[in-house]
Amino acid sequence: MISALGTGRPTLQTIREAHERIKPYIHRTPVMTCSSIDAMVDSSLYFKCDNLQKIGAFKIRGATNAVFKLSEEEAARGVVTHSSGNHAQALALAARWRNIPSYIVMPEDAPLVKVDAVRGYGGQITFCKPNVADRAATADRVMEQTGATFIHPYDHYDVMAGQGTAVIELLEEVPDLDVLLTPVGGGGLLAGTLIAAKGIKPSLRVIGVEPERVDDAKRSLEAGHIVGNESTNTIADGLKTDVGELTFPIIQELVDDIVTAPEELLVPTMRTILERMKILVEPSSAVPLAALVANRISFPGKRVGIHIGGGNVDLTKIRFD
Amino acid sequence: MISALGTGRPTLQTIREAHERIKPYIHRTPVMTCSSIDAMVDSSLYFKCDNLQKIGAFKIRGATNAVFKLSEEEAARGVVTHSSGNHAQALALAARWRNIPSYIVMPEDAPLVKVDAVRGYGGQITFCKPNVADRAATADRVMEQTGATFIHPYDHYDVMAGQGTAVIELLEEVPDLDVLLTPVGGGGLLAGTLIAAKGIKPSLRVIGVEPERVDDAKRSLEAGHIVGNESTNTIADGLKTDVGELTFPIIQELVDDIVTAPEELLVPTMRTILERMKILVEPSSAVPLAALVANRISFPGKRVGIHIGGGNVDLTKIRFD
Repeated sequence: MISALGTGRPTLQTIREAHERIKPYIHRTPVMTCSSIDAMVDSSLYFKCDNLQKIGAFKIRGATNAVFKLSEEEAARGVVTHSSGNHAQALALAARWRNIPSYIVMPEDAPLVKVDAVRGYGGQITFCKPNVADRAATADRVMEQTGATFIHPYDHYDVMAGQGTAVIELLEEVPDLDVLLTPVGGGGLLAGTLIAAKGIKPSLRVIGVEPERVDDAKRSLEAGHIVGNESTNTIADGLKTDVGELTFPIIQELVDDIVTAPEELLVPTMRTILERMKILVEPSSAVPLAALVANRISFPGKRVGIHIGGGNVDLTKIRFD
Repeated sequence: MISALGTGRPTLQTIREAHERIKPYIHRTPVMTCSSIDAMVDSSLYFKCDNLQKIGAFKIRGATNAVFKLSEEEAARGVVTHSSGNHAQALALAARWRNIPSYIVMPEDAPLVKVDAVRGYGGQITFCKPNVADRAATADRVMEQTGATFIHPYDHYDVMAGQGTAVIELLEEVPDLDVLLTPVGGGGLLAGTLIAAKGIKPSLRVIGVEPERVDDAKRSLEAGHIVGNESTNTIADGLKTDVGELTFPIIQELVDDIVTAPEELLVPTMRTILERMKILVEPSSAVPLAALVANRISFPGKRVGIHIGGGNVDLTKIRFD
């Protein structure tokens, strides 16, 4: 598979530039607090609510940065990716903003609601067999036919830079943050966050959190090299992927720790956030608070930031009663 | 029943003063937009999100204004109300902010979660039989014993003035609004809103919306006097009460229209808002959008404000799947 790398490893400077580049398109999402949840975990929590972002997820940040960093010539040929998740919608919408074509490779068993969402943003879908080999072959074929640029969901430097922009906004509003908890799947959000956070405030502890059943980042960190997941049996569908070849070295260099959250607390934590804060978060976004509630990590009296990455939930599959 | 009236019918000036008075305590809630819901109803909608307000509902505005308008002497003796809903929590929290006692009369069959919430805010609960006569008698007894001031949930001028503050914030952010849709139960929110809205922008159309099964405000407007509800069989539990003796004349004088929403669209509309906007709203707060979705009212191409009054939902009673 051909993987465009983007325009070089992000720095605080390029993440700030990314922020200026995408600002006209994205929402500046609110930082929310909730005294009753604070009381449950004995910390002051600051939720950066990218579930209220365009397309309902932070992925629009990275996709928009990558799309608008392309030269006019590259852009005119369009962009391509394979994803059945938030990145597919994000790339389609960012491409529409730049008025260029987007080609999205999706498995033929992708949920209709996701297919419709991508089409609704103007994405042109090519279906593939639901396996990694055909997905890559299909993306390659689309690239050959169209000349479109491949934009990887996370292993792409301009995508990472875009994902790092949320923490700039968070630290503008809460400069005296002590700790930041970020979910980790492919690692694009965490890598971008680490570079921005450590650049702005070196003393800020940044901790990655993943579901205990998909703990590849934790095991990779311990092993010193990427160790893939044996199972992807988690409700946190956004975090099933392994950490990437480009994201992992950044995580390895800068992260303070990676911890896990118990699977059985993810839906109850979504419900707690819904009841107390009145906002809907994806299972993936419940992971950091679930780790706190389970007392796997605790920061008594500290100011703790939590990345709420998205709010795209299939309500037919989750029950809160 | 003794009913304190507050300090006189609100004016735009006293609502502005109320806003300054309560600002240090309440959130300035966001105005949210959603392009996919806009497309469903062919209007530009502006949701004033008081579900993200303290205690999860707009009621904190009126209660806080009423509590802080009391003289030192009155305040020292505390406040009393009867409510099993958002006003009870609001009054308890506002009283705690002023460091005075609050006495809340609740029916003995009130849900435990609501009892706990009031206690959590420091309210002292007296249970009564679940009927209007015992509720009033119990409140009278508490007043006699304590000297506390009765703060009615809606038929109280200072409460109405507080409820009117949300529209000041909304019109600051969206000055070119064409229409405003406000749910109507007892009419406190609508009355305060009407005075503020018509004071700031006389051309703004303000329309009250109620569930079709609890259409007392509509029928009262048609009859020219208060006509009570024969049934309260709606899931919109915040809108079951009849319009009040103090709120109705204001509504009668200033409202442009009162319309109803179909009962069967309330939960689906809550779900639409949850899926598209990622926020949880009470059934009562789904009523205005449900009226638009049902095409009972429509404002093609117009800028339409919608009051989201609260987000306190018993998730054990409502299913979205």
